[in-house]
Amino acid sequence: VDNLSSLTLNRLSVYLRALRQLQEEGLRRISSQELAQRFLLSADQMRKDLAQVGELGIRGVGYDVATLRLKLEAVFGLERQHLAIIVGAGNVGSALARFPGFNSGNFQVVALLDNDPSRIGTVVGQLPIRSSLELREIVAGTGAEIGILTVPAEAAQENYEKMVDAGLRAVLNFAPVQLRELRGVRTKNVDLMILLEELAFSLR
Amino acid sequence: VDNLSSLTLNRLSVYLRALRQLQEEGLRRISSQELAQRFLLSADQMRKDLAQVGELGIRGVGYDVATLRLKLEAVFGLERQHLAIIVGAGNVGSALARFPGFNSGNFQVVALLDNDPSRIGTVVGQLPIRSSLELREIVAGTGAEIGILTVPAEAAQENYEKMVDAGLRAVLNFAPVQLRELRGVRTKNVDLMILLEELAFSLR
Repeated sequence: VDNLSSLTLNRLSVYLRALRQLQEEGLRRISSQELAQRFLLSADQMRKDLAQVGELGIRGVGYDVATLRLKLEAVFGLERQHLAIIVGAGNVGSALARFPGFNSGNFQVVALLDNDPSRIGTVVGQLPIRSSLELREIVAGTGAEIGILTVPAEAAQENYEKMVDAGLRAVLNFAPVQLRELRGVRTKNVDLMILLEELAFSLR
Repeated sequence: VDNLSSLTLNRLSVYLRALRQLQEEGLRRISSQELAQRFLLSADQMRKDLAQVGELGIRGVGYDVATLRLKLEAVFGLERQHLAIIVGAGNVGSALARFPGFNSGNFQVVALLDNDPSRIGTVVGQLPIRSSLELREIVAGTGAEIGILTVPAEAAQENYEKMVDAGLRAVLNFAPVQLRELRGVRTKNVDLMILLEELAFSLR
């Protein structure tokens, strides 16, 4: 499963979410048709995607919900929890610190950092804002792997490099800037302005 | 320019941001090589993209920064301001209401709505939270075109349909659910969990 495309991973994420919901509802088995219909997915595409990770379902019986969920979680490396650190406690960073999905079973934000002394000590959600100077120590102490970068554009590259230097191995960048990406670090960019501009394009 | 791909639009967004920064710095002309180097872009790709929107630059002189900026803004329909309404004043909605990019020259959030009576009237950033029941009236009164959907997953489809029904023509959906998209409405999804799961995949 090492060479799954980003689009396939996105779809597998969607299936995983659907399966979690079905399991919460107490459902034990579901056919690909039912699953597709319920969550507005393409049954054909789903069968192909699941076959890629070795899940074929059983004709006339469908998929076992719990088994398929575990299988997909294993694909994503979600058998264990991933710890994350947010660098930048402005509006975006603070919102993400409170975001339920970032504090679910599989992901846990363990620290929120900022370099503004007036912010340090303020509690956001469950987390007191700590000094960016403590980054290395916090990564070492918690074993966090994921960095969430929510500083202003002009401070992004410097903070990105510090995060990698401190030992973080994957970075989700919300700063509206193209980072000079470092080797061996998985870096994903989320640019909210680009999304709005694309909507504006469709409104011309 | 009607058939620009989503990837091309994303790159044009990045060039536009770079040009704005250069203009703020007082620069009037720049070659594609300089622009590419400064913002970590591919000069070849950029020349191709800009040629697609009719900008060829002048050999040995480069691009006029202000002209190219205006041209790109026109491509996105950014000669005028686009007004947006946020539906759902939880953590994500409230953060977006305060997000600088959503209150810049080209975009303006004009209302933040929620259906929880205990939240209505609370001021977030500059905006008092108003009742979701006022949606239609606010769209009509402001001429807002963009809806930003930040309600929980289970309320997303219903609120999406109400937004379209009230006259919004483009929707940016942050709810972690696949919407049944309505005709004639541009709908973009932002799923933060999928991004984290993709990072987790790279950490296996």
